[in-house]
Amino acid sequence: MAIVDTFRFSDAEYETRLAKVRQAMEAAGLDVLVTSDPSNMAWLTGYDGWSFYVHQAVVIGPFGDPVWFGREQDAQGALRTCYMTDPDIIGYPDYFVQSPDVHPMDYLAAKLTERSWHNGRIGVEMDNYWFSARGYQALSAGLPNELIDATNLINWLRAVKSPAELDRMRKAARIVERMHARIAEKVEPGIRKCDLVADIYDAALRYDPELGYGGDYPAIVPLLPSGTDAAAPHLTWDDKPMKAGEGTFFEIAGCFRRYHCPLSRTVFLGKPTQQFLDAEQAVLEGMEAGLEAARAGNVCEDIAIAFFDVLQRHEIIKNNRTGYPIGLSYPPDWGERTCSLRPGDRTELQPGMTFHFMTGLWMEDWGFEITESIAITDGAPECLAEVPRKLLVKQ
Amino acid sequence: MAIVDTFRFSDAEYETRLAKVRQAMEAAGLDVLVTSDPSNMAWLTGYDGWSFYVHQAVVIGPFGDPVWFGREQDAQGALRTCYMTDPDIIGYPDYFVQSPDVHPMDYLAAKLTERSWHNGRIGVEMDNYWFSARGYQALSAGLPNELIDATNLINWLRAVKSPAELDRMRKAARIVERMHARIAEKVEPGIRKCDLVADIYDAALRYDPELGYGGDYPAIVPLLPSGTDAAAPHLTWDDKPMKAGEGTFFEIAGCFRRYHCPLSRTVFLGKPTQQFLDAEQAVLEGMEAGLEAARAGNVCEDIAIAFFDVLQRHEIIKNNRTGYPIGLSYPPDWGERTCSLRPGDRTELQPGMTFHFMTGLWMEDWGFEITESIAITDGAPECLAEVPRKLLVKQ
Repeated sequence: MAIVDTFRFSDAEYETRLAKVRQAMEAAGLDVLVTSDPSNMAWLTGYDGWSFYVHQAVVIGPFGDPVWFGREQDAQGALRTCYMTDPDIIGYPDYFVQSPDVHPMDYLAAKLTERSWHNGRIGVEMDNYWFSARGYQALSAGLPNELIDATNLINWLRAVKSPAELDRMRKAARIVERMHARIAEKVEPGIRKCDLVADIYDAALRYDPELGYGGDYPAIVPLLPSGTDAAAPHLTWDDKPMKAGEGTFFEIAGCFRRYHCPLSRTVFLGKPTQQFLDAEQAVLEGMEAGLEAARAGNVCEDIAIAFFDVLQRHEIIKNNRTGYPIGLSYPPDWGERTCSLRPGDRTELQPGMTFHFMTGLWMEDWGFEITESIAITDGAPECLAEVPRKLLVKQ
Repeated sequence: MAIVDTFRFSDAEYETRLAKVRQAMEAAGLDVLVTSDPSNMAWLTGYDGWSFYVHQAVVIGPFGDPVWFGREQDAQGALRTCYMTDPDIIGYPDYFVQSPDVHPMDYLAAKLTERSWHNGRIGVEMDNYWFSARGYQALSAGLPNELIDATNLINWLRAVKSPAELDRMRKAARIVERMHARIAEKVEPGIRKCDLVADIYDAALRYDPELGYGGDYPAIVPLLPSGTDAAAPHLTWDDKPMKAGEGTFFEIAGCFRRYHCPLSRTVFLGKPTQQFLDAEQAVLEGMEAGLEAARAGNVCEDIAIAFFDVLQRHEIIKNNRTGYPIGLSYPPDWGERTCSLRPGDRTELQPGMTFHFMTGLWMEDWGFEITESIAITDGAPECLAEVPRKLLVKQ
């Protein structure tokens, strides 16, 4: 089916991923792993679909293929997107959905028991997407042993990207280049935020004959606050016209088959204030220092410290992390939620790791973002997208 | 600030909502309520922003305004969108974000203790969005008493919409009408799915001079599977051309300032098969029966049973619920997750309740959706949007 053909990776790739997970499970002393992170589910099985608002999971048992678990009606989507076959697709009846009396995790516990997977050491993602406190209690109640926290066990294995994954991220990079080009073309005093967002989506999704592909939905919607609102990093948009004399940052990502390339740029309409020009200088200089440190063998904090040192010289204080790993993602986050680019994070940088180098500044009454998405290589880091790295000024 | 002006309701409306919550808390014997559902947070305080991928909450204490709790950098967004002032906006330091060592809920427990709110009976949403098992454990560890499950306590209070909320949903209805008109105009054999989705977003977002407003992002992206893939309700899109001889359903919603009006229609390219014509007849007849039962004083299951009875006469079996409450929502779901239109649900229908009457069929190798979003009134239900209620056939 079309969805499968376009979306899935090779069988060999999935075999490699599963082998890595089983190896990590053995190291963690786990017989069974239940992953509910939609990105982990997709990475392991190819599962794709907007069904993560109900309880679902992929179960890796001691042997055999992964087992998809979800709502009965979504089993049809699993059969079409996962590489596994019928016996490994488990749908729970619809009356388990948002029921005050029964919980989908009761059903999962019963199914694990049927497979005699219930007696082992079972890992769950205690702090991951949509594995709720109630879901944890229900699953625990149905199983003999205490569940073991395996939060991010799979997320960590996703850190180093395969060539096929990097290829998707580079395709996403072409898309985000197109999105920023569209912003540069359309943004001007008077244009309504909602109209600009419509243009951003158009550039993000539409098929490009030159590229030979169209876009997928990014895991986060465009963030484009203006003026003093830009002090807040996660505001979306309204339908008011943009004003002259204000700065606006655009935090957006291109997405190709669920793989992301986030990239932020800032636009000033009219004559930029000294504050913005100083911020531009500090961030660009800091970014160069950070990129210089973004080398295999260094650790995450090296990038952050290099960047923060430059900011400090410019007397700018940024009291939040300056990046996170990226790749395959579903809403609400395009980060992988493992390491962070911040002091204290000693995660070693390896070729194939990909990060959103988030050099954004959110100050008391203004904000500024010029960021890059990078891949760690054997030498200098690869900046995935090529978008003019400067403050865009338009009259 | 622009965001505030356009997004927030009147102070009186928020006072009413808070009073309702305090009343429900008293009935449930709760001194403090911690809500982490982004829709509940927005409904109570006006908070808006794409920050729900990190731990956050609104706390309703025994007295005073609600307290916003979230990431320090998002406190800036809270100050700009919530009606509360500084003392009731609590940001946790950035090193709590995705840290293996500390958890934001440790911080919340400490803050509750500072306010001497820690000794009371504290309710949490055990089965709600992003209140993870680990978050529950961390918060429990920091507080003296066992936490009490208050899942959906606030969601239930959102069921009956105020006139101001209904106004937003009717505005969203105008948007979804525009979206379906765009589909009818553009869909044809050969058009690429991703291009059609770009058009759907354009119609969903762009400012309309006649309406006098533009659109917000719906909580679910467009779902438009074709042919046998339409057996799966939650597949999104790819970049392949649409084929003649296939049916495609479009499950989409208009969104105005976070309020939704979902509406689905089905398109057949070419001469529709008898299967689709029969489905159309059965669903339209069943919908009429369901709408007839959608009256104040009846209960949720009355609508479902009326609809299912007609389907049965047409020898069609739908083994999933046929609707859910709608209104204010954030990803990943535009439903309110309280009652459902299904046999056994005896929730009484009251004027001002709003539902997506989800009459979709997902069969073994095809799918069909013609749905309506309705408001319960003192008489016949109000269908929020006016989109030709029929199978759209295009050559």
